[in-house]
Amino acid sequence: MLIVQKYGGTSVANAERINNAACRITDAYRAGNRVIVVVSAQGSMTDSLLEKAREVNPEAGKRELDMLLSTGEQQSAALMAMAIQRLGYSAVSLNAAQVGIESTSLYGNAQIKNVKTKRISHELERGNIVIVTGFQGVNRFDDITTLGRGASDTTAVALAAVFGAGVCEICTDVDGIYTADPRIVTTARKLKEIGYEAMLELTASGLQKPHNRAVEMAKRFGVRLLVRSSFSDAPGTWIKEDSDVEQLSVSGLVVDRDVARVSVTGLADKPGTAFNVFSKLAREGISAGMILQSAVFGEDISFTVRKRDLAKTGEVLEANKENIGYDKLATDENLAKLTVVGAGMASNSGVAAALFEALYDNGVNIHMISTSEIKIQVLVDHREVGKATKAVHDKFELLLESEA
Amino acid sequence: MLIVQKYGGTSVANAERINNAACRITDAYRAGNRVIVVVSAQGSMTDSLLEKAREVNPEAGKRELDMLLSTGEQQSAALMAMAIQRLGYSAVSLNAAQVGIESTSLYGNAQIKNVKTKRISHELERGNIVIVTGFQGVNRFDDITTLGRGASDTTAVALAAVFGAGVCEICTDVDGIYTADPRIVTTARKLKEIGYEAMLELTASGLQKPHNRAVEMAKRFGVRLLVRSSFSDAPGTWIKEDSDVEQLSVSGLVVDRDVARVSVTGLADKPGTAFNVFSKLAREGISAGMILQSAVFGEDISFTVRKRDLAKTGEVLEANKENIGYDKLATDENLAKLTVVGAGMASNSGVAAALFEALYDNGVNIHMISTSEIKIQVLVDHREVGKATKAVHDKFELLLESEA
Repeated sequence: MLIVQKYGGTSVANAERINNAACRITDAYRAGNRVIVVVSAQGSMTDSLLEKAREVNPEAGKRELDMLLSTGEQQSAALMAMAIQRLGYSAVSLNAAQVGIESTSLYGNAQIKNVKTKRISHELERGNIVIVTGFQGVNRFDDITTLGRGASDTTAVALAAVFGAGVCEICTDVDGIYTADPRIVTTARKLKEIGYEAMLELTASGLQKPHNRAVEMAKRFGVRLLVRSSFSDAPGTWIKEDSDVEQLSVSGLVVDRDVARVSVTGLADKPGTAFNVFSKLAREGISAGMILQSAVFGEDISFTVRKRDLAKTGEVLEANKENIGYDKLATDENLAKLTVVGAGMASNSGVAAALFEALYDNGVNIHMISTSEIKIQVLVDHREVGKATKAVHDKFELLLESEA
Repeated sequence: MLIVQKYGGTSVANAERINNAACRITDAYRAGNRVIVVVSAQGSMTDSLLEKAREVNPEAGKRELDMLLSTGEQQSAALMAMAIQRLGYSAVSLNAAQVGIESTSLYGNAQIKNVKTKRISHELERGNIVIVTGFQGVNRFDDITTLGRGASDTTAVALAAVFGAGVCEICTDVDGIYTADPRIVTTARKLKEIGYEAMLELTASGLQKPHNRAVEMAKRFGVRLLVRSSFSDAPGTWIKEDSDVEQLSVSGLVVDRDVARVSVTGLADKPGTAFNVFSKLAREGISAGMILQSAVFGEDISFTVRKRDLAKTGEVLEANKENIGYDKLATDENLAKLTVVGAGMASNSGVAAALFEALYDNGVNIHMISTSEIKIQVLVDHREVGKATKAVHDKFELLLESEA
């Protein structure tokens, strides 16, 4: 089988961890697999390179930033190859130009367009373990691009798709996807598997890893992802097409504290008002999360923004008060967003009811509700988020158990 | 005019120095020149990367070492381009693969075979200042090679040769080539110019900068080098074809303390003895410097080796005592080598006489003498090297003045 393994910055942060990862890589190789490895830059390397750039030019051009940042992954890749060689196996590191990871031209946030297979195939045929730099591509000018933060996951999925890998392992500092953050909810349990859609809702709702774009690409090309620990042998979580078993289950729960609510009341009852509000915000780079505007409350709109965008949001709305036409503006940043994700949510109305019941039973006030096919989001007071998370989790643990 | 400027590790060691170099580069550009810049890795970057490699694999393969080390120059190049952009000029950094600096395959010590001109020409035509990574190439497998330590000078000369540059400026932490080390000889003076041949003798005799191979390449392609300071506007030293003015002058004086003498006495008087000795040493990677064997002293050979090779030299000779056939072996490491270089030395026998006179007048004993077309080398006691250097320098200062 062909396996793609991806090791993030924490997993290659120092010599010991690189050697540890090298052991896992050679384990997979010794088991008879061909192995392609994708690595990120070491730990805080990217940040320290950005600091170096800031010192010479606080407004450094993005082409040169990419030229600079891409060295981080190249160093990791070379070091990983050396560590594997030390264990007595053949390994070769390749950067994006050597592989032929062709990207769009947008420096700093390019997208992979095509991955050439010739060089990697050649190295695999020679029996080499191939180490590829994550996070980077080459555009049509032969210039180095980067794919945006966290995009080493995307590199790994792209390689897995092109080479038809049996699995793309995302090796990281957690050992799988949990039903909730185990630091908050002691009863949180690790999922054996989760569907692409549900996973996408979790990442869109605040879960950092694996990277959103990588999951989207995995879904599109049917790449089976396995999120697992770089440091332990604990079984990870599979991300793949929804299976029957999980159809009716609640998959997970994510808390996002970086949220503020904005309420605009007494809006003029004319077409295009909502568009007017959000297009003005979009022009300032502010995107709204949850948006609530019902027929019943037609004259009011509530929505969430990131905390850092709150002040600017206020400025934009104040400056356009006449043009938009509204009465009052209210904001609240003492909130947190709780997202419950699961494949069977839309077809199982009991889930939403159970959620609200759990919060009510525990005296947690709901400030805003938003639902979709596979998720329910509520805003609660930020001081009650721990209680709310535990209550909801316990509730659905029961549900899950009763289904089993 | 097209100018190539090369900045070494000390000259790009931190943000301040990069900004300083950027000012010099844009000065040259503003004066109406097209400018190609070659940069080394920052300060101790290469050493710290080697340390990282050693941590994961003390015997890391050279291909991967080159992959790792080449990131140092890429970082410098990107940072330099950013610093130039901050001053309001267009700059673009290019690595060896992007330029097309084609090298032999020997990782760690490759040689430049060819430099493609297309990309750099294109960038120059667009009005860009072009920053190129020194010290590296790409071999026929598309793999990154390095050209050996100090080889950024060679990259600069190669680019100057290919693009027919009017000058290749080696910008460094000294402001030119001196008649002797100014730290030892207070009266040392900076040369306005020196011929390629004389310069090669100086570098072969222990002078570190500019790099020996770079001077050889400059000579071969007739590239005019200017060694100057990265930090001051002091006029530097031109290295070019010998001019009439300097034909009869002593150009400089170099001290090399890394020298030990080996004397083998009572050698069998048969053909091939010298070959026998030196081929056995060469097989162990030991090369002899000065070698003395005259018809008069036919049964004895004296030669110098690097101090670190002395023990091994003794072992090899002892082990082959029967085979070589000699009586006694004596070594002395309390010596230093003084080299006087000048274009007119061979045709001006007075130079050697003046040298010996100066040493005699100052009570410095000569342990060994070797001469060539353009140099005279003597071994003296290492404790007397300061006195000897000053004596010789003062002597030739007089000569030089009397010629002026």
